[in-house]
Amino acid sequence: MPRLILVRHGQSQWNLENRFTGWWDVDLTAQGEAEARAAGTLLRDKGMLPSVAFTSVQTRAIRTLHLALEAAGRVWIPETKDWRLNERHYGGLTGLDKAETAARHGADQVKIWRRSFDTPPPVLEAGGPFDLASDPRYAGIAIPSTESLKDTIARVLPYYEAAIAPALKAGETVLVAAHGNSLRALVKHLSGISDAEITGLEIPTGQPIVYELDANLAATERYYLSER
Amino acid sequence: MPRLILVRHGQSQWNLENRFTGWWDVDLTAQGEAEARAAGTLLRDKGMLPSVAFTSVQTRAIRTLHLALEAAGRVWIPETKDWRLNERHYGGLTGLDKAETAARHGADQVKIWRRSFDTPPPVLEAGGPFDLASDPRYAGIAIPSTESLKDTIARVLPYYEAAIAPALKAGETVLVAAHGNSLRALVKHLSGISDAEITGLEIPTGQPIVYELDANLAATERYYLSER
Repeated sequence: MPRLILVRHGQSQWNLENRFTGWWDVDLTAQGEAEARAAGTLLRDKGMLPSVAFTSVQTRAIRTLHLALEAAGRVWIPETKDWRLNERHYGGLTGLDKAETAARHGADQVKIWRRSFDTPPPVLEAGGPFDLASDPRYAGIAIPSTESLKDTIARVLPYYEAAIAPALKAGETVLVAAHGNSLRALVKHLSGISDAEITGLEIPTGQPIVYELDANLAATERYYLSER
Repeated sequence: MPRLILVRHGQSQWNLENRFTGWWDVDLTAQGEAEARAAGTLLRDKGMLPSVAFTSVQTRAIRTLHLALEAAGRVWIPETKDWRLNERHYGGLTGLDKAETAARHGADQVKIWRRSFDTPPPVLEAGGPFDLASDPRYAGIAIPSTESLKDTIARVLPYYEAAIAPALKAGETVLVAAHGNSLRALVKHLSGISDAEITGLEIPTGQPIVYELDANLAATERYYLSER
């Protein structure tokens, strides 16, 4: 039966600094690298070996995938990178740490942006330090200027249906190495979580989450691999 | 105009030990990793940035690709792994070091196998320590039991025509991270080198070789990137 393994990237430099990252391309810390390797070792030790992989076009997710596959002895499986698995775009919050955000916008407003399903943060200023217009990986793509979680889901799920679901239906064991919010989109879909609840669901870094699926890709079981 | 960049993987453990490796999956040494990173730094410093990558299904080439792309800031480009870019299969010589090979087969015979274009070494014994029949990466593939350089070329070039040439014709800057003999196949084809001469052509590890191509993918120039 098809099986889907989700891994959120290990700690990045801006996770450590508590800054909104979104589409900004921040690398893993040494701890994040260790988390990625540990995830791969767990896959190997549990015999949960992926046969195909998907990731975003962001370095922290790609490197998490590569380090995990190295540890699992599976660096040779096919991998596809797609921007639709990117983190939620945090718009004008990109680069701000918690204190800066609260000082600029007020703690109550920040809580709304964090917890709301469909309210996006203010847009990212064009031409500012975090403008991605000249980043060649996004050439030809309508780069969002901000996203709500709803907006993120609206690009993740069509990609899941178009690219990931066919691999699952073909019997592959699929590994997706991605981000807190792009993985929330998949968990919401597969576990049928409500709009209100999904914003509070935390996905831990470097912890493989396994979905056992039936032939129609309905989830029959979801568990943390570390607990098996 | 299309551009093709070839990089042979950095030093592997068996390069260091002077053992025939072929399809056996040996990892890079620390020096090999450093060579791969240096290749990527050179790509970045010379502004020779690949937009799409191809590699084999062997760890030493894949990791060379990943380390080079990390150093070049291009880990997000699409990459395709295919067994047809694997190293030449050395048959029954797999795992033997120079002294063992000479003791078993005689130095003259070894020279013939090394220098002949179309004489393959003896076949790899089925069920022996280097049998790849149970390696899942080769499921569904008719794994060779030995290869001459001619045999290697006979699988590399159709793959070049089917997968790499279309990317070049689409205007991509293509990076191929592969092996001494799979890269010889490409150099023979693009530089029009004779059967007799190609066996003596050494491809250095970790040194990006650039082909400038015309619209029909005929080579207009070949150079080591380090010399520009």
